[in-house]
Amino acid sequence: MLDDDKLSKWIEQTVQSGDIPRKIVLQKIAKTLKKKKPYKKKKGFKYKGNGPQTRASLKIIPLGGCEEVGKNMTLFEYGNDIIILDMGFQFPEEDMLGVDYVIPDTSYLEGKEKNIKGVIITHGHLDHTGGIPYLVDQLGTPPFYGTKLTMGMVKKRLEEFDLSKKPRLNTINYNDTIKLGPFKINFFHVSHSIPAGVGVVIETPQGILVHTGDFKFDFTPADEHPVDLSKIAELSQKNVIALFSDSTNAMKPGYTVSEKYIGETLDKVIKEADGRVIIASFSSLISRIQQIVNSAVKYKKKVFVSGRSMIDNIKIATELGYLKIPQGLVQKITKKTKLDSKDALILTTGSQGEAVSALTRISLNEHSQVKIKKGDTVVFSSSPIIGNEKAIKTVMNNLCRLGAKVISNQIMDVHTSGHACQEDLKLMITLVKPKYLVPVHGELYMRIAHKEVAESLGMPSENIFLMDNGDILEIYKGRMTKAKKPLDTSYILVDGLGVGDVGSQVIMDRQTMADNGVLLVIVPINKRNRKLKGKIDVISRGFMYAAEAEIVKEIAKISEEAYKTILKKNPKAKRGLVKKFITGKVDKFVHKKLERRPMILPIIIEQ
Amino acid sequence: MLDDDKLSKWIEQTVQSGDIPRKIVLQKIAKTLKKKKPYKKKKGFKYKGNGPQTRASLKIIPLGGCEEVGKNMTLFEYGNDIIILDMGFQFPEEDMLGVDYVIPDTSYLEGKEKNIKGVIITHGHLDHTGGIPYLVDQLGTPPFYGTKLTMGMVKKRLEEFDLSKKPRLNTINYNDTIKLGPFKINFFHVSHSIPAGVGVVIETPQGILVHTGDFKFDFTPADEHPVDLSKIAELSQKNVIALFSDSTNAMKPGYTVSEKYIGETLDKVIKEADGRVIIASFSSLISRIQQIVNSAVKYKKKVFVSGRSMIDNIKIATELGYLKIPQGLVQKITKKTKLDSKDALILTTGSQGEAVSALTRISLNEHSQVKIKKGDTVVFSSSPIIGNEKAIKTVMNNLCRLGAKVISNQIMDVHTSGHACQEDLKLMITLVKPKYLVPVHGELYMRIAHKEVAESLGMPSENIFLMDNGDILEIYKGRMTKAKKPLDTSYILVDGLGVGDVGSQVIMDRQTMADNGVLLVIVPINKRNRKLKGKIDVISRGFMYAAEAEIVKEIAKISEEAYKTILKKNPKAKRGLVKKFITGKVDKFVHKKLERRPMILPIIIEQ
Repeated sequence: MLDDDKLSKWIEQTVQSGDIPRKIVLQKIAKTLKKKKPYKKKKGFKYKGNGPQTRASLKIIPLGGCEEVGKNMTLFEYGNDIIILDMGFQFPEEDMLGVDYVIPDTSYLEGKEKNIKGVIITHGHLDHTGGIPYLVDQLGTPPFYGTKLTMGMVKKRLEEFDLSKKPRLNTINYNDTIKLGPFKINFFHVSHSIPAGVGVVIETPQGILVHTGDFKFDFTPADEHPVDLSKIAELSQKNVIALFSDSTNAMKPGYTVSEKYIGETLDKVIKEADGRVIIASFSSLISRIQQIVNSAVKYKKKVFVSGRSMIDNIKIATELGYLKIPQGLVQKITKKTKLDSKDALILTTGSQGEAVSALTRISLNEHSQVKIKKGDTVVFSSSPIIGNEKAIKTVMNNLCRLGAKVISNQIMDVHTSGHACQEDLKLMITLVKPKYLVPVHGELYMRIAHKEVAESLGMPSENIFLMDNGDILEIYKGRMTKAKKPLDTSYILVDGLGVGDVGSQVIMDRQTMADNGVLLVIVPINKRNRKLKGKIDVISRGFMYAAEAEIVKEIAKISEEAYKTILKKNPKAKRGLVKKFITGKVDKFVHKKLERRPMILPIIIEQ
Repeated sequence: MLDDDKLSKWIEQTVQSGDIPRKIVLQKIAKTLKKKKPYKKKKGFKYKGNGPQTRASLKIIPLGGCEEVGKNMTLFEYGNDIIILDMGFQFPEEDMLGVDYVIPDTSYLEGKEKNIKGVIITHGHLDHTGGIPYLVDQLGTPPFYGTKLTMGMVKKRLEEFDLSKKPRLNTINYNDTIKLGPFKINFFHVSHSIPAGVGVVIETPQGILVHTGDFKFDFTPADEHPVDLSKIAELSQKNVIALFSDSTNAMKPGYTVSEKYIGETLDKVIKEADGRVIIASFSSLISRIQQIVNSAVKYKKKVFVSGRSMIDNIKIATELGYLKIPQGLVQKITKKTKLDSKDALILTTGSQGEAVSALTRISLNEHSQVKIKKGDTVVFSSSPIIGNEKAIKTVMNNLCRLGAKVISNQIMDVHTSGHACQEDLKLMITLVKPKYLVPVHGELYMRIAHKEVAESLGMPSENIFLMDNGDILEIYKGRMTKAKKPLDTSYILVDGLGVGDVGSQVIMDRQTMADNGVLLVIVPINKRNRKLKGKIDVISRGFMYAAEAEIVKEIAKISEEAYKTILKKNPKAKRGLVKKFITGKVDKFVHKKLERRPMILPIIIEQ
């Protein structure tokens, strides 16, 4: 009889089966997920970083937005005062199975809630606002500041959540100055793919900081007035110590194409279409919607809107004066709507191939109102967000199959980005003339490209800071340094209504089951003598056709033998060891037979 | 007491919980997977298509390659004679969880094995050869024909499989003519991203057909001689009835960039690199490898190779004379290899961010020999295959983080495609002057783009055929028509060693578990009176942290109540109904509480 330790070793040796690729895949997942520890409330958490906390330095800490495009959130802290810029979420990476969103880890702020003087939101996109409903409660419901449209969109979103207390939403105008503790904040209007975006100028006791928000220079935008160029140019006289600037398009040479040019292409498409026109775009791209509406008026089309976020945003933007639509021109699609006319122009969401969108339903011929027919034109007035390429392609193919003419950005200029390309970035740096540059809003390789752009202007390499989330910048007497020790920060996975209750083990289990399903091995035993009592039952899901059940019988047999073998080695073997041995044996068998690695779950039933 | 029918209805009403998005997602999966029926051997299957079988028409049937880039395989059938062009596999779509490859469904050929006169392989890429090991046995091991390199690569791959009989592999030269039954076949050399690719000219009793294979016009290729332009031009005199032409790049305007130009960029990168250079590319891109080797010689670098397919292909190509490498210049990386020198140039696979590749291990700092240090340059001499964008990006970010300078096609021209762009396609059509055009090798939207290119040359729309896999083209007396009834064809999923034992239900179950894991509800009952015997046990995997187990207790309670309720309604309720009721109740509870939809498996244990 082997004791538990020896038995454990014997099990290792007996059931080892080498499968290096699988191991590496799991290692990779574990590695990329390593930061995704369970979120734990830490009471009385204190920051124990380097440098005396008492020194009157200014601290700048990105909690998100520096390792991704998404979940933008930056803290500015001086003494006992904190302001926060943006509070976004991120859509999950592809190895975060089943996860809906990722939000920043704000544990640094625990115990500091009363220090938070306010949260400034640069614009209404979800990577800048999506974290608010999940975080506002635990941050002590600080006041928010943003332009009319931005606050309108935040308000709408907060209505969908059950919060203990609604935060105060303060509307600012472009020329306002607000004071939050020791911070004096001014704004400048920027062009972006949503109206009413701002960059911010933060005057602090340690100097002036400028954050661009998401921006591009569009001298002929379709909404409002262009970027506040002269305001930005004036900054060059103010000895700005650091510029935080959007890096999303830093890999792209040249200037970002103007929205107006896109409007002209769309106008041509709408004019020349034989049948109905269906345009899929981003629901917050109000300027695009305005241009489409203008063309619809011109060519006497009736506009129908599909997709909840599209309907919501059109409503908000119209109410707040950002969108001008002739009375009665735009209609929601209801059961009674007649859409057969050639004059119908349908505006819809789903340009990213999202499984639950109206456009996907249309492409599967499952939309109750819109059935594609020959002569219909479908325009993807968008570009694929990385990771959505395959889904979009499937929707396009399905639409073609139904007879639609499909137009995407690959064929015509029906979309432009909201972010600055290399020449725009140069213009921004040249106008602001900062001492230091911090590329933000981008993955590392994008921010490195931004750094190279700045270097090409003669900016010294050591004055450009590449930050990870949780890194701490300190500004003291005109000098900016990066603290050697970053925050012990993480991020939080949101799955359904659960915030932070899903982590690396859960995700790895999902991965295993996604790859090869689950095998349940039900082992009924006699409570007293541990002998098998009846047959071992094997149940599978996601493994293979039930019809191919021959292997299931073999697995039952292998399990039975394994159970008997281990009890022979040690009749008192612990339950965990028994399960481990059965799992190992079944795994080895299944892998050899099928090269598959399902999740194996032995369940011992004592009777 | 309710009878089973009434009970069933009562269950529906009681546990209904509306979750439309989830339903649509599953509908979508079911829809895209609908063709993926289990593969069943049908003995004595007979084709019952339209048109008299006896009519001496020529039939052309694509079994793959017309709805995807991948699994290319086309049949040419005349009377009792069949030839096959290519036999590839496809990498799975993203909703085919856990699937390794997709291969064509060849059930049409069952009972016709003896008719197969030969299989022609146009070039050595896996989307043209990958299906061979899985299909050759069941097709009666027909003879294969291809150029030296192509057959060399097929041979290597077949060695890895345990086949009842190895097929005969016949090497052809560009100027050979072969006769297979009533078919006379000639070849013309084309440029592509692998050497020794051919297009084929098939003389049939119903006219001459031309199939381009995968091609581009490269007048300064880095391997061999350019495309056989004069041979192709001569075809215009031969009244070619139909041209089957590569559509992969039909969306892209202009000409495809020459391989030589890429070589010049890479030469500059290698020359100017401060430290080591690591180049990731496709292992079959022999001409790229040749150019890199040439630069290595020029700048006195030592070349090290990592990645099994890269090592294999270099070996085969060198042996067969397609790659010229000075003796001793290129080494495999072993444990003893010293790679620290600045002169090291490392050639590796992994340009698609594949989880198991050498480059991914390097990026995770887990490669035993290669540790990235500052000054290293990593070149992605490739472009992302659709669907790999996120994985590639992650590898790039990780390499940057370790200090490497990363160069991709976005920054410099370090890659060109092997497929013809629009102007190349026009050249091909103009040279061949076919009566009919069949765009192949591409998804529908690409083939539509190809059709538009041909129309722009004045080709009548009705002479251009867009085919689905399984569609049947018939040529009779100089006229080509598409049969109204396509083959009842499907495709086969390969998972590990299992071919065709995974289908839509299995994949949908995997999807459910990938999203939210599995919940096992173990219900121990008294065999005689069906009363609960002891506590209900709930086990979860991939659902949430075990620590958050409060909900697990609640689920046990809900299950217990559900069990009692249904037995009250009908003490003799069938097992299936009991399980359905428990599942429904638990599902409703979990969805309301967490907005999650795990796989719920009630297991009733009679004691």
